[in-house]
Amino acid sequence: MIQTPYLLFLGDAPDQLGAKVAQGIRDWRPDNVVGQFRMEDCKADVRVPDMDLAAAKKAGAKTLVIGVANRGGVISSSWKRVLIEALAQGFDIASGLHNLLRDEPDLVAVAHEYGRQLHDVRIPSVQYPIANGEKRSGKRCLAVGTDCSAGKMYTALAMDKEMKGRGLKSSFRATGQTGILITGDGVPLDAVIADFMAGAVEYLTPDNDDDHWDMIEGQGSLFHVSYSGVTMALVHGGQPDALILSHEPTRTHMRGLPGYGLPTLETLRDTALPLARVANPKAQVVGVSVNTAAMGEDEALSYLEGVEKRMGLPTCDPFRQGAAKLCNALEAI
Amino acid sequence: MIQTPYLLFLGDAPDQLGAKVAQGIRDWRPDNVVGQFRMEDCKADVRVPDMDLAAAKKAGAKTLVIGVANRGGVISSSWKRVLIEALAQGFDIASGLHNLLRDEPDLVAVAHEYGRQLHDVRIPSVQYPIANGEKRSGKRCLAVGTDCSAGKMYTALAMDKEMKGRGLKSSFRATGQTGILITGDGVPLDAVIADFMAGAVEYLTPDNDDDHWDMIEGQGSLFHVSYSGVTMALVHGGQPDALILSHEPTRTHMRGLPGYGLPTLETLRDTALPLARVANPKAQVVGVSVNTAAMGEDEALSYLEGVEKRMGLPTCDPFRQGAAKLCNALEAI
Repeated sequence: MIQTPYLLFLGDAPDQLGAKVAQGIRDWRPDNVVGQFRMEDCKADVRVPDMDLAAAKKAGAKTLVIGVANRGGVISSSWKRVLIEALAQGFDIASGLHNLLRDEPDLVAVAHEYGRQLHDVRIPSVQYPIANGEKRSGKRCLAVGTDCSAGKMYTALAMDKEMKGRGLKSSFRATGQTGILITGDGVPLDAVIADFMAGAVEYLTPDNDDDHWDMIEGQGSLFHVSYSGVTMALVHGGQPDALILSHEPTRTHMRGLPGYGLPTLETLRDTALPLARVANPKAQVVGVSVNTAAMGEDEALSYLEGVEKRMGLPTCDPFRQGAAKLCNALEAI
Repeated sequence: MIQTPYLLFLGDAPDQLGAKVAQGIRDWRPDNVVGQFRMEDCKADVRVPDMDLAAAKKAGAKTLVIGVANRGGVISSSWKRVLIEALAQGFDIASGLHNLLRDEPDLVAVAHEYGRQLHDVRIPSVQYPIANGEKRSGKRCLAVGTDCSAGKMYTALAMDKEMKGRGLKSSFRATGQTGILITGDGVPLDAVIADFMAGAVEYLTPDNDDDHWDMIEGQGSLFHVSYSGVTMALVHGGQPDALILSHEPTRTHMRGLPGYGLPTLETLRDTALPLARVANPKAQVVGVSVNTAAMGEDEALSYLEGVEKRMGLPTCDPFRQGAAKLCNALEAI
């Protein structure tokens, strides 16, 4: 539906995490990316060629994808100038922001004038049901994090890739805008009406073959006070058989909440598992996924080994090392 | 904004719990109610005079309030006939259903024709912020339940009444349609977009005098897989100083989920308290509120005594006995 390839718009991202949408697309669908567009004060870099609109157009880009997430999702006036120019030069625009492209009259007018498309992947396209909690066939895996942005989506994508590589049945189930932009399908869970969150997750992960795994993209954290309700809906609506604990070890406080420290992996385990067992009494914690992007190779390997010993669980960085260990754990269930 | 007094529409409520909206209004604002309108197969009764539309009109009713909750909130065709006739006879209609009155073209047309108002209290009237987790001044109390519909709203209303009776500062903070219909103000939390749930609760319970208590209306249950995400947002967005455990002892399974048993009060305590302490390290469980409506007086008193001993916490049925015990516990903090 969204035309490829993309030019990734990084805007004025204040840090690398701010551009995680662009990074995700670049990491999992690199063939769909021709380059990145960064404004003067952009602090992020997803390591594809920097291009202005004209160069990207020449390189074949069809859609400008807003690859930067803002708290609250405001489309600033400095962004607006770029977006309007992009439409005028013949780009479609795709966005997962809360603040919808279609709600900006100037963008709508210019898109109309030049016959371009505005894609808001944030908007739910389905009337989701209220969750009924009934046991579904097939198996499900969910990563839960000590914090937001700890590597849960990467974990699910890497495990899906590994399972498919082994010839096993697996589906990545996107629950956020990046996942949806990567796969073209999913539930924009943080934009769903509260009462229907768990039902949307049930809808996303329906009955399946007994040997099929849904790799559900996690959201938020049970310990992040801004978004914990969304995480709870995943834990109950997803009725996971397998939980993966996700962690980013260099974080000094919860993302966006300077007064809040991170829980330990033990606390995360002891909190998430009993909650998961409400919906699925057979739920198990099967492994730990650590985002070691901020660590050197030796430091990372030593850290992973330490966690594996401490927790007694298969531990790896699925992006750095692949998800073989975690998938072995799934196969052992 | 909504004109009183009301005629309470109970429709074809399948049981007494199905009419909890009407029951709540009748219990806490009896002066605003002239009677109830029940259809032939209605299994609920809120013990006010049964009236048809003409009789209610004659008794002075200005607004027909839909006092019955449906799973998913569908406005059936049999309801529709009554609502249209009510508009034609000069009633406004107020509703807290998900399925909005304003989305029903026939109702809108008839309301327009007769100059009547359609009130959808379900719709958030504010663009809520994302929760920032910052510590707020003043004190907050939240009831968390072993199940939905366990008496959390009644507990908050009764505690608010008791605190005010003692000359103390207290506000009931409505988070559901009944509470909003009762007080005319609040946040319809289950209709809020997922990402803004906790922020809506912060908005509802802002900084206040150090000796002021917000009595926050609870929603759902951490153990009810359909709605647990909403409950989680209350636990974190409300940053309660005091938790009340709410329980309905005759329930044999989670409401609407035949396969799910209820947790014990101990399990609820041990689950809710650590989660509450993420947002407010000083959170305490201060009492137990039991809905003994289905028990005789002796049975109720004996049950309450047993729970009080077992849990080591002040225990009462605030609707049957008043909330003095629970408010004593708040005053002791």
